[in-house]
Amino acid sequence: MTSTDLVSGVFAAALTPMIPTGAPDHAMAVGHCRWLLENGCDGLAPLGTTGEANSQSLADRMALIEALAAAGIPSNRVVVGTGGCALDDTVALTRCAVDAGYPNALVLPPFYYKGVSDDGLFAYYAVLIERVGDPAFRLYLYHFPQMSTVPLSPALIGRLRDAFGGVVAGLKDSSGDWTYTKHLLDTIPGFRVFSGTEQFLADNVAAGGVGCISATVNVTAPLAAQVLRADPPERERLQQDLTAIRIALQGFPLIPALKRIFEWHTGNPAWRNVLPPLLALPEAAAAELRRKIADFPLFRDDVPLDATVVAQT
Amino acid sequence: MTSTDLVSGVFAAALTPMIPTGAPDHAMAVGHCRWLLENGCDGLAPLGTTGEANSQSLADRMALIEALAAAGIPSNRVVVGTGGCALDDTVALTRCAVDAGYPNALVLPPFYYKGVSDDGLFAYYAVLIERVGDPAFRLYLYHFPQMSTVPLSPALIGRLRDAFGGVVAGLKDSSGDWTYTKHLLDTIPGFRVFSGTEQFLADNVAAGGVGCISATVNVTAPLAAQVLRADPPERERLQQDLTAIRIALQGFPLIPALKRIFEWHTGNPAWRNVLPPLLALPEAAAAELRRKIADFPLFRDDVPLDATVVAQT
Repeated sequence: MTSTDLVSGVFAAALTPMIPTGAPDHAMAVGHCRWLLENGCDGLAPLGTTGEANSQSLADRMALIEALAAAGIPSNRVVVGTGGCALDDTVALTRCAVDAGYPNALVLPPFYYKGVSDDGLFAYYAVLIERVGDPAFRLYLYHFPQMSTVPLSPALIGRLRDAFGGVVAGLKDSSGDWTYTKHLLDTIPGFRVFSGTEQFLADNVAAGGVGCISATVNVTAPLAAQVLRADPPERERLQQDLTAIRIALQGFPLIPALKRIFEWHTGNPAWRNVLPPLLALPEAAAAELRRKIADFPLFRDDVPLDATVVAQT
Repeated sequence: MTSTDLVSGVFAAALTPMIPTGAPDHAMAVGHCRWLLENGCDGLAPLGTTGEANSQSLADRMALIEALAAAGIPSNRVVVGTGGCALDDTVALTRCAVDAGYPNALVLPPFYYKGVSDDGLFAYYAVLIERVGDPAFRLYLYHFPQMSTVPLSPALIGRLRDAFGGVVAGLKDSSGDWTYTKHLLDTIPGFRVFSGTEQFLADNVAAGGVGCISATVNVTAPLAAQVLRADPPERERLQQDLTAIRIALQGFPLIPALKRIFEWHTGNPAWRNVLPPLLALPEAAAAELRRKIADFPLFRDDVPLDATVVAQT
């Protein structure tokens, strides 16, 4: 096993800006990633659920990975989402990421078939590791049963760690089930667990986790970064503020809502583009979103989320 | 709209024979399709759930479609599964099928995101029809909420029919919810509904449906064909026999079990190959399966499912 940079901290599950056809807009994507890294994010997880990765062709996803690498988005601050339904696709994407200099990959279980066995999931991940065949590769499992419909049992994770050691480096827990997170932290030494929501950021780090990878971090990163670095009891107070933003965003279709916020933030209407089955946020919901977030300090940088920009939409 | 052959009858959701790496074995696949057509099947639905399509790369799926066409598997007896998560992939596969001479396609809704809106699904299918852009194309919707997690509401189907008429030709109903099937048959004139299980074959045809597309038809086709062609009350009696086989196969992982039956039937151990997360049927389950099916007349052709073949496994 070679030494691969350990990733930790506040990670945004990066949104994917798109041209009208739905293909990634590389210039906007690179700009967004740079902006996130300069505005509170320790790192990025592009091409995950938030990045609409599974709505994109393999070729588009590979091209985006290569565009991020070409733009110098640093290797030690990226975990690339590479999991699809087809093992061949997952191998190809993961290899592409590792070859581009991003050895840390976040990999969903294959999510079409339901009720599959741990033996079948073990085989899937084992073949992935074998076929990627690069000692730098680090596998971060992606536990998101509400979306993938395929939970990753602690027993399966234990078997994978036993077989592949630190190559099975960690996990993103998007289940929202703190008991599950805590169980992994308590029972698998050295396993790098990211919470899938910044709502559990303080708890996760206090219990030995390494941070969070979250959609809403696209807009909460500055505050999330403060939570990560604060000492108790300040940490708990900041966590409450952070959780309040997270809760305010619930109830909206999350990806279209976040993209709309960036349209307001940047003045660029291309931020409204999403891929079906998602749709741009309807106007009524956008107006309600605007009201709900008005009181929150979302951004700390030079482009304000101001009424002028909102009025253009 | 050009005239495209209407498909109807007993269709097997064809298994995909594979080489050990998991890529389709074209010669075996063509042979299996021919065998099905000669043994009771009115038609075939390759590259569906049973065909492990979403576990295969786009390139492998396209190559299989082209291999079937090159081998002369007839256009009017095929509905090709072409639905993936990514609209680009679904467009590419559907175009490939239409270009290969298979204008009837069975298309899952995009199945990664959950709780998506009818508006979003409408957009997905509308863009698909527009981008396929071939007047011969006929869309068969694939309603399988237990697997896709994305139900297709009668309201959505009505909107698609209103917008695209007979291009939205029909639907495969794998929900197992006869009320849903019946509702579509009663409310959408001319809509071609296949039951997803031969268990409802007699009921479906009696109510105006056009047949069934089912995994187990790979082994029940001769009997299913009799059900389709019999008059009541003979039809009901035969349907009971057919349903008994279907029920006997429940409880086994269906795709590995069906592949194992074809290993026994042909003596070719390559039939055991599946793609992760599926696994070949374990020996204990195989022994139980063999006992359960021993009393059923599965095949009518010249290669018996006999003890000699079983003893080799």
